[in-house]
Amino acid sequence: MKSGGEGALPEWKAHFAEFAPGLELRWWDDPALDPEAVDFALVWDPEPGRLARFPRLRAIFGSGAGVDLITADPGLPRHVPLVRCVPPEATQRMGEFVCWAVLSLSRDARRMAIAQARATWDYFEAPFAAAERTVGIMGLGAMGQRAAEMLRGLGVPVIGWSRTPKELPGIETFAGAAGRDAFLARSEVLVCLLPATPETQGILAAPLLARLPRGAGLVQVGRGAQQVLPDIIAALDEGQLSGAVIDVFEPEPLPPESLAWTHPRIIVTPHVGSLPNRRERARYVADCIARVTRGEALPNLYDPARGY
Amino acid sequence: MKSGGEGALPEWKAHFAEFAPGLELRWWDDPALDPEAVDFALVWDPEPGRLARFPRLRAIFGSGAGVDLITADPGLPRHVPLVRCVPPEATQRMGEFVCWAVLSLSRDARRMAIAQARATWDYFEAPFAAAERTVGIMGLGAMGQRAAEMLRGLGVPVIGWSRTPKELPGIETFAGAAGRDAFLARSEVLVCLLPATPETQGILAAPLLARLPRGAGLVQVGRGAQQVLPDIIAALDEGQLSGAVIDVFEPEPLPPESLAWTHPRIIVTPHVGSLPNRRERARYVADCIARVTRGEALPNLYDPARGY
Repeated sequence: MKSGGEGALPEWKAHFAEFAPGLELRWWDDPALDPEAVDFALVWDPEPGRLARFPRLRAIFGSGAGVDLITADPGLPRHVPLVRCVPPEATQRMGEFVCWAVLSLSRDARRMAIAQARATWDYFEAPFAAAERTVGIMGLGAMGQRAAEMLRGLGVPVIGWSRTPKELPGIETFAGAAGRDAFLARSEVLVCLLPATPETQGILAAPLLARLPRGAGLVQVGRGAQQVLPDIIAALDEGQLSGAVIDVFEPEPLPPESLAWTHPRIIVTPHVGSLPNRRERARYVADCIARVTRGEALPNLYDPARGY
Repeated sequence: MKSGGEGALPEWKAHFAEFAPGLELRWWDDPALDPEAVDFALVWDPEPGRLARFPRLRAIFGSGAGVDLITADPGLPRHVPLVRCVPPEATQRMGEFVCWAVLSLSRDARRMAIAQARATWDYFEAPFAAAERTVGIMGLGAMGQRAAEMLRGLGVPVIGWSRTPKELPGIETFAGAAGRDAFLARSEVLVCLLPATPETQGILAAPLLARLPRGAGLVQVGRGAQQVLPDIIAALDEGQLSGAVIDVFEPEPLPPESLAWTHPRIIVTPHVGSLPNRRERARYVADCIARVTRGEALPNLYDPARGY
C-alpha cells in the first residue's frame, strides 16, 4: 500500500537516483536478486517471515511513521535496526491534516459534501467557530507537537496528553493514567495521534468516548486497531459525538460495506494524514543510508521497550 | 436567506431578548406594523423600494459583511446609515474558512469526498504540503488580514494585494493596478476576499486566471458577481487551475443544474465563509443600537465613495 508495490518501483528508482545515485534498487520478488547481497529493506506491510530471508540486512526502513505492521512479523530479525519514516515533511503534513480535520468538523464539511453530491444548496449556520472549542491532542510526539502549534496559530485552544509527562510552551498538558480523565473531560475535539501499542489497542471505545464532553468531535489519525468503530458510530448516533474524521482503519483498505462510508457524520480519508510523498521518503531513506555508511546513529529507531 | 425570513423570527427574538431586552422585534410584513414606528431594519436582500417605506429609520443593518444587495435598491434611503455586519466573530470565522479551503485544496478534499460517496478507498499522494505553496490574498480588510495571520500560523507563505497600499507585518504586499500582475504571478493559491464593487464585477475571469502560475488553486469567498464560472471551469479542465473552493455564486442559491456541483475539482459551499451565527449577529446589532441611543459613532459603515 504505502510503498506502492512493484508498480511504484520506477518512481522510487527515479527518486533514489536523485538522492543516492550509487544505490541499487530492486523489487524483492526479483528472481535475479541474491538475498545475501541485500543491505537494506524498505517495507510497509511485509508478509511474515519475508524479512528473515535477507541474512545481511543492515537496516530496515518502515515506509510510514508507524511500524506496527512490520513488528507484527514473528520472524522479524530483531537485531536489525528498524527505522520509522519521519522526515520533516511528515510532521508538517500531519499538522496540516489535523487542522483540516478540526476545521472540517467545525464547519460540518461532511454535510456540505453530501449537499454538493445532491446538487442542493443546504445553507446552515455552524454553531461554533473552531476557536471556541478546546482541542485535546492524545500523543505529543513530533507530530502532536506540531499539530498543537499550528492549531494555536489558528486561535484554537489546545491541551495535550501523553504517556509520560511533557512540558510544551503555551499548552496545558496531562500525563499517564492519572491525568487521562481530566484531559478527556476538557477535550471538545479529541485528536488521537497515539502509536499502535498493546496499551492503545481498542482504546477509542465507548468507555473513553463517554468521558468526553457531550457533542465532542473526534479526529482519528493514530492506527485503525485503536478504534472500535461500532462504538464510535453509536456515540455519533446517540449525540455523544457530533462528528468524526477517521483516517485509519482495521483492516485497510476499509471494505466497501463498512457503515463508516455512508455515515452522515463521519469523514473517511484513506490513511493520508501524515504521509510525505515518495520523493520526500526517498530523500529521508537515502539520508539514513548515508548515515549507516558513515557509521552515524540512525534517527527515529523503533524501541521494543516502548513499543513504537 | 441570511436573515432567515419569517421562520427565523422566533430565534432572532430569543437572541435580541438576551442582548437588547427592551427592543421590540417585528417581521416587516406584519400587518399590525406601523411603518412610522420603525427605528431600525435588519435585512440581507430586500425587495427594491421596501426600505423606503419606513420613513423614520435611524439605521439599516446588513445581515452580512457585504451590503451590495441592499445598495442595489434604487429606492434605498441613502441618508440613513447603513451598517455592515462585521462582528469580531466574522473575521475569525472567515480566517478559519480560508484555512480550511486552502488545506482542502492541498489535500484534494474534493477527490476524497467523491471517493467516500462511492465507498472507494482511493489512496493517493498529495504532491505538495500546503506550506509549500504561496497563498495570495486579494483584499486586505479585517478578514483578509486575519486570514493571512492564520495561514502564517500554519506555516504557509502569504502575500497580499489591496486597492490602496497596506503594510502588514511579515507579509509582502502589492497594491493597485500596477502591482496586480506581479502579485498574481506569485499566487499559487489565490484567495479572493474583495468586496462587491463595479470594479470587481467579473474580475475572476480568463484574463486574470491566465496570470496565475500554472496549476494554481482558487478560493472564492468574495461575491458571486465577481466570477465568470465558465472561465473558471475552463481553466480547471485545461489545467491552468488545479482546484477551486467557491462559496459565493450569482445567483444564490446556486441552481441545481450548475456544472459547479458535479465538477471533480470544485468544492461548492453555500455562502458560509464568514457568517457569524444569529446569536453573534444579534449581539452585534444590539450593540450598534445601544451606540445610536447613546449618540455614539457606528462601526463598519457603508461608504458610497468607496463602494463598500
